[in-house]
Amino acid sequence: MNEAARFALSAEATADIGGEIHALVSRLFPICRSITGEGVRRTLAILSEHVDVAVREVPSGTRVFDWTVPQEWNVRAASIRDASGKAVVDIADSNLHLVGYSEPVARRMPLSELRTHIHTLPDQPEVIPYRTSYYSRDWGFCMAHREYLALEDGDYDVVIDTTFSDGSLTYGEVFLPGETDREVLLSAHICHPSLANDNCSGLAVLAFLARALTGRRRRFGYRFLFAPGTIGALCWLAANEERLSRIDLGLVVSCIGDGGGPVYKRSRRGDAMIDRVMEVIRCDGRKISMIDFSPFGYDERQFCSPGFDLPVGLLQRSAFGTFPEYHTSADDLDFVRPEHLASSFRMIMDIIEVIETDRIPLNLSPKGEPQLGKRGLYATTGGHKTTPDVTMAYLWVLNLADGRHSLLDIACRSGLPFSAIAAAATRLEACGLVGDAQA
Amino acid sequence: MNEAARFALSAEATADIGGEIHALVSRLFPICRSITGEGVRRTLAILSEHVDVAVREVPSGTRVFDWTVPQEWNVRAASIRDASGKAVVDIADSNLHLVGYSEPVARRMPLSELRTHIHTLPDQPEVIPYRTSYYSRDWGFCMAHREYLALEDGDYDVVIDTTFSDGSLTYGEVFLPGETDREVLLSAHICHPSLANDNCSGLAVLAFLARALTGRRRRFGYRFLFAPGTIGALCWLAANEERLSRIDLGLVVSCIGDGGGPVYKRSRRGDAMIDRVMEVIRCDGRKISMIDFSPFGYDERQFCSPGFDLPVGLLQRSAFGTFPEYHTSADDLDFVRPEHLASSFRMIMDIIEVIETDRIPLNLSPKGEPQLGKRGLYATTGGHKTTPDVTMAYLWVLNLADGRHSLLDIACRSGLPFSAIAAAATRLEACGLVGDAQA
Amino acid sequence: MNEAARFALSAEATADIGGEIHALVSRLFPICRSITGEGVRRTLAILSEHVDVAVREVPSGTRVFDWTVPQEWNVRAASIRDASGKAVVDIADSNLHLVGYSEPVARRMPLSELRTHIHTLPDQPEVIPYRTSYYSRDWGFCMAHREYLALEDGDYDVVIDTTFSDGSLTYGEVFLPGETDREVLLSAHICHPSLANDNCSGLAVLAFLARALTGRRRRFGYRFLFAPGTIGALCWLAANEERLSRIDLGLVVSCIGDGGGPVYKRSRRGDAMIDRVMEVIRCDGRKISMIDFSPFGYDERQFCSPGFDLPVGLLQRSAFGTFPEYHTSADDLDFVRPEHLASSFRMIMDIIEVIETDRIPLNLSPKGEPQLGKRGLYATTGGHKTTPDVTMAYLWVLNLADGRHSLLDIACRSGLPFSAIAAAATRLEACGLVGDAQA
Repeated sequence: MNEAARFALSAEATADIGGEIHALVSRLFPICRSITGEGVRRTLAILSEHVDVAVREVPSGTRVFDWTVPQEWNVRAASIRDASGKAVVDIADSNLHLVGYSEPVARRMPLSELRTHIHTLPDQPEVIPYRTSYYSRDWGFCMAHREYLALEDGDYDVVIDTTFSDGSLTYGEVFLPGETDREVLLSAHICHPSLANDNCSGLAVLAFLARALTGRRRRFGYRFLFAPGTIGALCWLAANEERLSRIDLGLVVSCIGDGGGPVYKRSRRGDAMIDRVMEVIRCDGRKISMIDFSPFGYDERQFCSPGFDLPVGLLQRSAFGTFPEYHTSADDLDFVRPEHLASSFRMIMDIIEVIETDRIPLNLSPKGEPQLGKRGLYATTGGHKTTPDVTMAYLWVLNLADGRHSLLDIACRSGLPFSAIAAAATRLEACGLVGDAQA
Repeated sequence: MNEAARFALSAEATADIGGEIHALVSRLFPICRSITGEGVRRTLAILSEHVDVAVREVPSGTRVFDWTVPQEWNVRAASIRDASGKAVVDIADSNLHLVGYSEPVARRMPLSELRTHIHTLPDQPEVIPYRTSYYSRDWGFCMAHREYLALEDGDYDVVIDTTFSDGSLTYGEVFLPGETDREVLLSAHICHPSLANDNCSGLAVLAFLARALTGRRRRFGYRFLFAPGTIGALCWLAANEERLSRIDLGLVVSCIGDGGGPVYKRSRRGDAMIDRVMEVIRCDGRKISMIDFSPFGYDERQFCSPGFDLPVGLLQRSAFGTFPEYHTSADDLDFVRPEHLASSFRMIMDIIEVIETDRIPLNLSPKGEPQLGKRGLYATTGGHKTTPDVTMAYLWVLNLADGRHSLLDIACRSGLPFSAIAAAATRLEACGLVGDAQA
Repeated sequence: MNEAARFALSAEATADIGGEIHALVSRLFPICRSITGEGVRRTLAILSEHVDVAVREVPSGTRVFDWTVPQEWNVRAASIRDASGKAVVDIADSNLHLVGYSEPVARRMPLSELRTHIHTLPDQPEVIPYRTSYYSRDWGFCMAHREYLALEDGDYDVVIDTTFSDGSLTYGEVFLPGETDREVLLSAHICHPSLANDNCSGLAVLAFLARALTGRRRRFGYRFLFAPGTIGALCWLAANEERLSRIDLGLVVSCIGDGGGPVYKRSRRGDAMIDRVMEVIRCDGRKISMIDFSPFGYDERQFCSPGFDLPVGLLQRSAFGTFPEYHTSADDLDFVRPEHLASSFRMIMDIIEVIETDRIPLNLSPKGEPQLGKRGLYATTGGHKTTPDVTMAYLWVLNLADGRHSLLDIACRSGLPFSAIAAAATRLEACGLVGDAQA
């Protein structure tokens, strides 16, 4: 049985998926999300069109570890108008204009006072920054620095029509059970408003992955989590504490639609299976850049806190904070491209292929090399300067298939992609040269 | 209790100390020291003005391990005069002129014979080299190569008025007991004549450190050793063999007053606590260069010999043998600067801070991150590209405070200075988020 | 007893040996070798003039592991003649012209058909490539691409007068027993036709090494193997399975006569003694380049297969496949030079010196440094900037001679050549400062 063929996908087979994922990103993009509220529910409703999402509601005021679920926040309108009644800022144009969790305001004020509530990026004068104030009651607007400089003295009418109410925090979960009770966690934050890469891209790619895995035979169970950053992840952890020991590996997925990277940040453990898997994965033929764990970033901060220490890393294309579009209005639907979304989708499918198909092969002819030529696995003419990679993959599998090395180990040591090693092992198994060490 | 504040010193708090240390260096500089004799005693007498030095005398002829304490050597005068009676070399001008342990001479000789006893540095024609002949009876002069070339043919009167006598070898020791019986060794060689960096600087900095530690509460006992190189260190080792097991770490300190480095040479063990401490120390904001142990240098050669194998490294600014002033008359009072002496003093106080304050913190809220914002430890506005180091220090401490990592471990892994990690831990302890793993 | 002096050889002592080895290479070069046949026997007969070679014959059809010894192949003639009868290719000019194991042919054919049987190197149009087809019945010629392009249309008479017969595969072995039952394996492939570096050089150097070791006292037994690649090595392994556990280390030696490298490819284990020995060897003063094991190359592929996993590495000057002369007619008697053959010979003698003389020294004066000056091992005048390597070798041996480090360990850690460390140890032993930890 060639397990490898079940998950790995060719570029041809996924030619259209980039466009489909981008279309989903485009539907998610305009929604005004925050860590609570209708935006999250609407997002989950759209994801539910692709895969069966279980929606969880956690009541405001619920204690989760050191935190408390905040009141639910919703937005009806937000604008700044000048004395003539002309809107100089309106959330209708971009939901980045309003600082997340801004309290209600309806007041006329002079520019001098208004200024203390306006956030801009002087170094990037054309774009609107993204700002929040979840846990400290405040209000504010974000705008392009160029427009900020154009504001004339005088009075302005500020309207922020938001509500805080006892409601709930919402997150979504998809669980696809596997043949064993071991689980893989794949998580994307759902709390950012109109930022395409961060993280409509992660939500959309994971939704398509969940759909792609739905009909397949799976050794592992797959748990997809679409939760608001920090507080949402903590809610999920609190609700699932007793089953966390089933998780053998996981990935937080964000900023997965641009053309940079990929960059993988290792788990806190540093030597978890997922950390080794990423060494043998290629994305569009390139190796994945590896950086060590640090306790800042997305929800790997929570999963890798010392009380959980889950084997979870972070997978991105461009790393957060390193690209100029990060947390600005330039992180838009043009910044994420169908081809990058497709290659990220294939990369994660390749990761799943490793997880699902890794095994410990056993060389059944371990004394010397077996004669590959008579089995059609070796050039019949000898003397060439170089050896094709496919031959090297056969030789590496045979050499290390001593019952102490898995395919993943062999790929790591050989420097060849896992896919090449797995294909060689499958072919050698078909020839009867390699068997299963665990059989 | 904020232990960290007890030893670490700001630049402001030590603004004058550089000048004070330099003044002490200036008093020690002119003395004609060797491995025995009055020069060492006079040096210890001056150090005793700053801190209570116990002076030890080891009689000539005493066997110490494979060595024998040599006869005591003292100098009254040494010169070379030309036929006209003019002194062309006189120890009164520089005590480097006389080869250490030169035997007495009072004889007229032609230049051709005299030349075989003169040491110069042809590549550095303006400076006088430093040479010794402790254990092979000989005599010689050192002079600037330029002046050597100017010597005219003819006879010269050589006078070396030195004495060899059964006396003793002298060394000094300061011991400041600690709350535990564990000890720290700080050692500087006292045998070099007028070389300011090598090692009036080490003697003076250690004297001021001893004074600074005198009034403080100390977990460790501190043993300061001012001993002649090799034979002096061996005398101390022989006298203290039974208590060496108390030494948890140590530093040989030399050439600590110039503007280079700092350079730390690891202990023979390579993974002793002192070797890890030096990774998390900064000097004027710079990391310390690290080199591996080798069995050449100062008295770490003796402390790290296989029969002792003490956890002792060597701390320098510019490494010996690598700067042109090394072992020449250019290693003078201009070469060592008050600001470098002050920063070296602060650096060693920082090292002591690590030693004294290292502990294993325990995150009392280990499931997920605790909510730092409500405790004033986190920015209230979210969305920024970067995180301040102070926040990173909180996150690193919380993430690694699992009872298996000390503050030193956390500083090593995070790449942040120990001082930042220690300050974060103290603040988190004050908030009740972190406790003591050993409590 | 200074064991070191027994194997290490100075350049002077071996001034002529390069010429002698090159003369042997020159005699082996013209012979038409393959994996079976008279060429191998003639080669072994010449080697037998230098050292007592046991010749083994393994009958055609013998099963060895996954392989079967092929029929014996011999060549009487091979040529291509144009319509006028002129030979355009003739094995009499170079035995590379005929693809190894070509089947008999005697037929006129048009150029269009002939072309499908001709191998050239378009990128190196002046040289004849080397090709074989051992296990797939075929025929072919190799020629310079320039001459290939000059072939005119028309019919050609192809004559390949070769025989396949039930005979045997031949290999040679020299065993020099040692004082212990531990063994060293030195192996060179004997199957290549007129390629001087690959591997007349290896055969000739090993023959001279065997001769040089013959009269000496040896701790280890030395097994020299001259066998056809792959199938020959497998025959030897099959015949010696029960004694392989005696092999403590080994080297496959090939391409050892050119001026490149040296390059050492580590054993599969990566940390075998031979892998560490190569770190402390110098060739003409240069360190040996080290590369990790990979399962492609010469017979280390067989020795390091998982069923054997012998501690055997590959030693070359220029690594196979990396130099333009590799597997072409440019690998001729000018490409290998007497001086390179001599330095390779000395290098392997140095390796043997390490193997034979490594031991665990014990510092008998471990507390502090012993006084080297009074034993004439240290400069009597002190104060110099640098220390000679010979002094550093004394200090390193004394510092690490704690009963836990062998001379090899000390050489590795110090970065000094083994020869310097061994000489220092021998001198320190003579002074009574160092003894034998195992005594």
